[in-house]
Amino acid sequence: MPGGSLAIDVSKVHGPDQVSQSDSVAVEEPLEIQLCAPSAEDSAAKSISITMRTPGNDEELALGFLFTEGIITSLEQVSSAMHCGPEAPDTGYRNVIRIELNPGAHVDLTRLERHFYTTSSCGVCGKSSLDALRVSGQQPMTSNTTTFDREVIVQLPDKLRVKQEVFATTGGLHAAAAFTPDGDISLVREDVGRHNAVDKIVGALLKANQLPAQEMGLLVSGRASFELMQKALVAGFPLLAAVGAPSSLAVSLAREFDMTLVGFLRRGNFNIYSREERLA
Amino acid sequence: MPGGSLAIDVSKVHGPDQVSQSDSVAVEEPLEIQLCAPSAEDSAAKSISITMRTPGNDEELALGFLFTEGIITSLEQVSSAMHCGPEAPDTGYRNVIRIELNPGAHVDLTRLERHFYTTSSCGVCGKSSLDALRVSGQQPMTSNTTTFDREVIVQLPDKLRVKQEVFATTGGLHAAAAFTPDGDISLVREDVGRHNAVDKIVGALLKANQLPAQEMGLLVSGRASFELMQKALVAGFPLLAAVGAPSSLAVSLAREFDMTLVGFLRRGNFNIYSREERLA
Repeated sequence: MPGGSLAIDVSKVHGPDQVSQSDSVAVEEPLEIQLCAPSAEDSAAKSISITMRTPGNDEELALGFLFTEGIITSLEQVSSAMHCGPEAPDTGYRNVIRIELNPGAHVDLTRLERHFYTTSSCGVCGKSSLDALRVSGQQPMTSNTTTFDREVIVQLPDKLRVKQEVFATTGGLHAAAAFTPDGDISLVREDVGRHNAVDKIVGALLKANQLPAQEMGLLVSGRASFELMQKALVAGFPLLAAVGAPSSLAVSLAREFDMTLVGFLRRGNFNIYSREERLA
Repeated sequence: MPGGSLAIDVSKVHGPDQVSQSDSVAVEEPLEIQLCAPSAEDSAAKSISITMRTPGNDEELALGFLFTEGIITSLEQVSSAMHCGPEAPDTGYRNVIRIELNPGAHVDLTRLERHFYTTSSCGVCGKSSLDALRVSGQQPMTSNTTTFDREVIVQLPDKLRVKQEVFATTGGLHAAAAFTPDGDISLVREDVGRHNAVDKIVGALLKANQLPAQEMGLLVSGRASFELMQKALVAGFPLLAAVGAPSSLAVSLAREFDMTLVGFLRRGNFNIYSREERLA
């Protein structure tokens, strides 16, 4: 059984029948991400996030989170990434990961609180959320000329499903995947949190020196929200394809930053919400 | 068209064919929740949360959030709940809601940061997350004797689908519903965020003086996570039924607090993960 699942006893009810048996559920445990920045005024380790995640690829998750939140911008800033603290006595998971930065790395932790600017024109709104991304230095992908074959796009969900190992046993995980214009799914990560699955992908690409992901697409097994589009933008993906529906703000972000957004990718069909010229 | 959706232009690809048409997407906009507590040292309005939500039932969302987070414990503590700030110029949504408490209401804002205790035995882990709920005063539902008919349970997903107005047009929303032991779905709320849909239900019940929800079940259209189980526990629901899979920590919470947890509720079948004696 893959490491992200756990066997428990369950009663299965089928109409009038009921059987008790062992079944697998997706593991959900908290992960605390700590950051040590020697260059900061206070260089002690700081807890910057606690997320409910499926254990596995924790280092990628932490690095991807720091990257997509704009805290770090390159792997050179990172000195080490490792678990610390005791093992959880009941499950054996290690639920604290500490990222140490190099002395030369200047990070701005206030960015974690600066996702949503309040502007004088509209206060808190979708537009100010997009403006905040511009202010943080994100550029539209107008000049990105990567194209993806439509035949390739429609085959992605089936290819992804085959690689969703923990989902196959638990039915309880989101997945994210990076794919090439040829339709090769080069990387799949699963998690109970869809944002975590994307952070794991981005962290893995960061570790492999493959960011920005200018010649890759990002596939997500569920819906496309503002948060997922934002992570795809920061990581440099010119295209995000979602098996589920996009939200209004996901569409606005894609259009504002010239990203290609595909939704409802299932049963050989899909919708294109922006920049369809990347779909050859 | 229901208020939570927006019409946009989209290209629909069906095999070799493509048509451009107008389609509906679920609205996602930030909501800032502000709290004014006259009894606090600093009685100015404080921003305590920004959540990406689908506009509509914002007051319920804010009240439900404050209740399930343990900031307020009764409606008597609330003096007023109203939108403030300007309308977003492009969409017209009002995205700030301010809750004013009565002078006698004593609230503890540090609770917002205290979800996850670090214990000396296991540091950050699932067990300490459950311990934190106990420390905050949550009691097991051992003595709750409400029962739900199995025939009633299996009919819930179809009944819910009929009432998911915005989902029907956008395919992009989570839903939560409160139901009676007779299978009457008395309340449905939709949102791009599944935690928001549950908070809207809890806020609506709080406003109607129907908390704790000791004789009701909570139905969710997706998966059951720790966070959703926690909200159900605080609101007093003895049973949570999820159309999707539960996580390991959702199961642990249900068992620790003697709640009934049903998962994979679809096509007439379901799994029972805890306390099946409530399913007659």
